[in-house]
Amino acid sequence: MLLKRLREEVLEANLELVRKGLVLYTFGNASGVDREQGLVVIKPSGVDYDVLKPEDMVVTDLDGKIVEGTLRPSSDVDTHTLLYREFKGIGAVVHTHSEFATSFAQAGMSIPAFGTTHADYFHGPVPVTAPLSDAAIEGRYVHETGLAIVARFDGANSEPAIDPMAVPACLVAGHAPFVWGKNAADAAHNAVVLEAVAKMAYRTLTLKASAVEVSQALLDRHYQRKHGAKATYGQG
Amino acid sequence: MLLKRLREEVLEANLELVRKGLVLYTFGNASGVDREQGLVVIKPSGVDYDVLKPEDMVVTDLDGKIVEGTLRPSSDVDTHTLLYREFKGIGAVVHTHSEFATSFAQAGMSIPAFGTTHADYFHGPVPVTAPLSDAAIEGRYVHETGLAIVARFDGANSEPAIDPMAVPACLVAGHAPFVWGKNAADAAHNAVVLEAVAKMAYRTLTLKASAVEVSQALLDRHYQRKHGAKATYGQG
Amino acid sequence: MLLKRLREEVLEANLELVRKGLVLYTFGNASGVDREQGLVVIKPSGVDYDVLKPEDMVVTDLDGKIVEGTLRPSSDVDTHTLLYREFKGIGAVVHTHSEFATSFAQAGMSIPAFGTTHADYFHGPVPVTAPLSDAAIEGRYVHETGLAIVARFDGANSEPAIDPMAVPACLVAGHAPFVWGKNAADAAHNAVVLEAVAKMAYRTLTLKASAVEVSQALLDRHYQRKHGAKATYGQG
Amino acid sequence: MLLKRLREEVLEANLELVRKGLVLYTFGNASGVDREQGLVVIKPSGVDYDVLKPEDMVVTDLDGKIVEGTLRPSSDVDTHTLLYREFKGIGAVVHTHSEFATSFAQAGMSIPAFGTTHADYFHGPVPVTAPLSDAAIEGRYVHETGLAIVARFDGANSEPAIDPMAVPACLVAGHAPFVWGKNAADAAHNAVVLEAVAKMAYRTLTLKASAVEVSQALLDRHYQRKHGAKATYGQG
Repeated sequence: MLLKRLREEVLEANLELVRKGLVLYTFGNASGVDREQGLVVIKPSGVDYDVLKPEDMVVTDLDGKIVEGTLRPSSDVDTHTLLYREFKGIGAVVHTHSEFATSFAQAGMSIPAFGTTHADYFHGPVPVTAPLSDAAIEGRYVHETGLAIVARFDGANSEPAIDPMAVPACLVAGHAPFVWGKNAADAAHNAVVLEAVAKMAYRTLTLKASAVEVSQALLDRHYQRKHGAKATYGQG
Repeated sequence: MLLKRLREEVLEANLELVRKGLVLYTFGNASGVDREQGLVVIKPSGVDYDVLKPEDMVVTDLDGKIVEGTLRPSSDVDTHTLLYREFKGIGAVVHTHSEFATSFAQAGMSIPAFGTTHADYFHGPVPVTAPLSDAAIEGRYVHETGLAIVARFDGANSEPAIDPMAVPACLVAGHAPFVWGKNAADAAHNAVVLEAVAKMAYRTLTLKASAVEVSQALLDRHYQRKHGAKATYGQG
Repeated sequence: MLLKRLREEVLEANLELVRKGLVLYTFGNASGVDREQGLVVIKPSGVDYDVLKPEDMVVTDLDGKIVEGTLRPSSDVDTHTLLYREFKGIGAVVHTHSEFATSFAQAGMSIPAFGTTHADYFHGPVPVTAPLSDAAIEGRYVHETGLAIVARFDGANSEPAIDPMAVPACLVAGHAPFVWGKNAADAAHNAVVLEAVAKMAYRTLTLKASAVEVSQALLDRHYQRKHGAKATYGQG
Repeated sequence: MLLKRLREEVLEANLELVRKGLVLYTFGNASGVDREQGLVVIKPSGVDYDVLKPEDMVVTDLDGKIVEGTLRPSSDVDTHTLLYREFKGIGAVVHTHSEFATSFAQAGMSIPAFGTTHADYFHGPVPVTAPLSDAAIEGRYVHETGLAIVARFDGANSEPAIDPMAVPACLVAGHAPFVWGKNAADAAHNAVVLEAVAKMAYRTLTLKASAVEVSQALLDRHYQRKHGAKATYGQG
């Protein structure tokens, strides 16, 4: 069996999403990539979480072609693999329909950086894609979903470009969030924090529609505190 | 004892509603129909869920007349049986007062199709009935509740008709949702998803009152993905 | 030990409030009355729920004077006893700071009858008292709290009088709900339903500020269904 | 090992925050002070709660210098120690990113005293600091966070001064709450109540933007009931 440890990590990330309440029934999936071998491990489609085993995970190449596994991969596999091809620094991708992040996606709104909880993880607002065109939806839809994410980070439509390593999440308009990280545990952790941040941003905005984002200085300070060369958080 | 397996399925659907937090005390009920025998199995009225057994289920004919059982059927039985008579393709009906779906019903608002979670299950907005007239309330009220649902799907008041197989739920104005499916598990599953979808629609609207529904292309794509002849979701 | 069964019922009602999430720490209390003996059994003040025993309950007369018990009664005892003296048909009183009902109380708003969940238990809006005057607050405050409730049901300030048996709850402005019933289990049940009804009314109003109450016909129909001489709900 | 009992109390306070749902992952910390020895016991940074032991707690002096312990203290230690130096009557400090209190902090809004739940613990609104300047953020940021809290209680910017013993909590703008108390259990209890009070204030304001605070008489009455010389609550 290929990639035994990565299978276990990906399974564990899937289960963390369930434990933290981000997933209803089978509405979510996590994957991880082995960059050396160019292989992706991803949850199978529509299988109950409580019976998932490492050997159920599906192994595909970076184009989503099945390399090992008897089950069908997540129906979102083409979004995952596109993100791996385009965002070279990421090691895992998570997709959920978590309630508050999805509500922002449905409203077509990015999640503003209203506080330090956000700034500790996301170095700026969490962006939302443009709505997909009918042609994209009727064409290679899952692939196009990935393209919409990449386009947003590349700075399409005269919006500023975003570094996917500094803002490891994107809302797909009318759909839900995709989140990534350096490995499966990190991506799941980011997805859980994204939902917490979305929940507090929702309440901030419904308390005060004119609420303002934190300053660039605060964004920088908190993000560097956890991620910079001089990180002061934790025991690292 | 008639319909042993259907009794078990109906009981299990009732318990799924409790497990998923859709039911407070005894505010909910599920039923299933055996089309060949023309018999309905329904939860008894006002019995605690934790003592319910398959043999407590009540069997009625399609007019709600008790065929087997010593307990009184759910007080909503006449709505259930009307739906079975009118919507020939359905195999089960669920009624809950789940919080967010009921809030839309109380506001007299349909649930807009704001995202793909919705589109995976409901091929368009989940409609709300017109308020019942005083005559209907003072007459055969429970039967009239069913008539209001059927009228909404038939396209009364110059609203477009809706296919009950494509949109398996309706909000009764000032009351709560009725949901259906091909069998009891499916109807309960749809009721759980309806509540999740209502919750996210609530938050979408309170974030952005002018939020717009997804495109027809996206509605079609997601609904077909799970339900069409070429379904690509799950292991089926 | 006086009133052994009533002590057990009152303890059980207190615990039901905790199980249903209506109580944080010790913010709640339930009592019951023995009309024949003119005695009240009430929770002691500030004792943790997980160590409460029937023998910890305090027995007072209808003026709140301790008849049996070594612990101090709930600091709200004078509100409870006033309600027993004024509302002759009630057998138990519950007070909580449950989140949504308290939010209406803090907003000085009654809870409109937006749906059948409400109508099944409360035959009209759940009223809110006038704010207490400084003199009332600085005087016999807890007693005055009861007077404000009674005044609201008596129809003070040219508002219509309300039958406390038909609407078994009142919000005290800037404070929280008091709820009653025919016995301790019934009062606790009403308090749990009040919170559910308040939660749905909150969401109805935030979805649609102009939401309208259900018709008098619907109010009558649902209330009679559970409480009238011809009740059709349950197995009674 | 220094301060064995205080370590246990501080650990227990940290765990109470987790049990009550105020903490996601490691986003929170509690500390306690031994005034006689001038020593602070504080949670280590970024360690999972479920493996924390009393001996993991870090002991520092009142300037945050480590006196005992091999782990790095919470990254917020300089805020804690500043509060101990400035607020002489407090025995413990708690910091969380609890959802509703943080949402007020992100909106830059104080929490109004809308009801008696609030008045029982906080003798007036829970204030919010001014936003930190870029210089403060780029300088001794954690220390400056404490200075912003102290400045708010000292009555900077022509706002009235506040007694930190009467209002044992402050929101840091764009960040989250700091809460204190006479000992670690008390500070954690206040943090839990603050979150409950913030939640109800949020709902009060979203129900009625013009909601008004309770009267000074009610604030005084409730606060004195629990904290004054003539306290009537509990069994004390």
